[in-house]
Amino acid sequence: MTGRSGFNFLELAAVNESAAFNRMADFEVVSTGDGYAEIGMAWRDDFTQYVGHLHAGLIAALLDTACGFAAATVVGAVTASHFSMNCLRPATGRHFLAKGTMLRAGRRQIFARAELFAGDEEGEMLLVATGETVLVPTGA
Amino acid sequence: MTGRSGFNFLELAAVNESAAFNRMADFEVVSTGDGYAEIGMAWRDDFTQYVGHLHAGLIAALLDTACGFAAATVVGAVTASHFSMNCLRPATGRHFLAKGTMLRAGRRQIFARAELFAGDEEGEMLLVATGETVLVPTGA
Amino acid sequence: MTGRSGFNFLELAAVNESAAFNRMADFEVVSTGDGYAEIGMAWRDDFTQYVGHLHAGLIAALLDTACGFAAATVVGAVTASHFSMNCLRPATGRHFLAKGTMLRAGRRQIFARAELFAGDEEGEMLLVATGETVLVPTGA
Amino acid sequence: MTGRSGFNFLELAAVNESAAFNRMADFEVVSTGDGYAEIGMAWRDDFTQYVGHLHAGLIAALLDTACGFAAATVVGAVTASHFSMNCLRPATGRHFLAKGTMLRAGRRQIFARAELFAGDEEGEMLLVATGETVLVPTGA
Repeated sequence: MTGRSGFNFLELAAVNESAAFNRMADFEVVSTGDGYAEIGMAWRDDFTQYVGHLHAGLIAALLDTACGFAAATVVGAVTASHFSMNCLRPATGRHFLAKGTMLRAGRRQIFARAELFAGDEEGEMLLVATGETVLVPTGA
Repeated sequence: MTGRSGFNFLELAAVNESAAFNRMADFEVVSTGDGYAEIGMAWRDDFTQYVGHLHAGLIAALLDTACGFAAATVVGAVTASHFSMNCLRPATGRHFLAKGTMLRAGRRQIFARAELFAGDEEGEMLLVATGETVLVPTGA
Repeated sequence: MTGRSGFNFLELAAVNESAAFNRMADFEVVSTGDGYAEIGMAWRDDFTQYVGHLHAGLIAALLDTACGFAAATVVGAVTASHFSMNCLRPATGRHFLAKGTMLRAGRRQIFARAELFAGDEEGEMLLVATGETVLVPTGA
Repeated sequence: MTGRSGFNFLELAAVNESAAFNRMADFEVVSTGDGYAEIGMAWRDDFTQYVGHLHAGLIAALLDTACGFAAATVVGAVTASHFSMNCLRPATGRHFLAKGTMLRAGRRQIFARAELFAGDEEGEMLLVATGETVLVPTGA
């Protein structure tokens, strides 16, 4: 329908490696599917805000990346023009997993949303934030 | 009205220093006023996304911090439960300045919005993104 | 956890009847569950925008009501301080169904999201918009 | 830059008249400028939610229309793909005025934001809500 071709797991891992911030933050492409992507990150003491929780910028980065990569599995390279998130609980834990799902790929805009889970020592995952994006294809 | 006391410039500079991510990203409290705050950051090559623009996570971090600090000048410590942003143009430049304004301080929620400007070599500042937050007082 | 008691189906139907706009628009509480609510509305020719699709105000009203009623099943009376929506497709059809889900009930804020489906003559339902809210308990 | 031509006051008043919902709600185009539009509406007892304030759907409709018409003064016909709003205070009053401002007209997306004011008997106007949109040109 869109005439654009999506990225597979290896291509998205390469895109992830090509982004300096993603490398610096050690973002990992955990899994991808058709309109779906999971991005993982381990806890980092230097990524906290003033009370010691994960900084809003990192919550946003994880949710936005999961949305963008979910869309990229269907339409290739995209960039977000709108991003929003709700922070349901303090973002603390041993590691984080953002699960992105594409909702709709239009000709000019793609819609995706994501959920961010924080995992503790026992491996229990708790939903800490949700996000959604409006993306535009970049043709890259 | 709220019975809470706001932070002055020096107190906000100390809050900024107390946040590990803000130190790592070299965020600077440029100025503060009554319900107003400006946060600056110099360009960093390691903060880019895959096409070399400033990463959405950093755009969010700057806008969110400007909103939170603007609110903190009036009500003290806050944390964002909702954040949203629109990316109007590619975020590139020599340095960035986020200007936050508090719109309303209710008893349970505070509303603020911010604008992110990118500056080039000639010092010209261009609006690249806007953001808004819903904040709750943390009583810290 | 919250110490507040939620509304059941009959109570929500009564809340729906007590709202003048909901009566005027013929909103119907279709079903409710624990943290879940469905709101239905038939197509109305006088609810269109300038190209003949359902007006954004009605899309918002349906999504916002589904979010609020989903939350009300758990925490009772609420009001939205933040609402956002993405319009995935033109909102046309014979009838509309908004499905709201509560994501998290904190002490001061409740988070919910909703999906709006449009149904055609064959009864096929198509996702046309998504929305999310930040709500505060009103204690009513 | 965009190659599209904007609507003037009379053309926007005609667009407003062509929308069934805007007619039903008695929306009025109060003024327009370059990237700017004001939409007015008188209080209506049948537009309330369950505690008697203006319904969120009407708040959204006013903010969304002000954003869209502000953009239309520059680029012509548009439709919103994303809308969000923050409700700062209960929306009550004798009449309402939504002031929309276009922030940026890109080739594929236009960004606008709006503020909703409620006026009392003395003519005092109070900011009750803010909103923002991502719009796409419809070429109509």
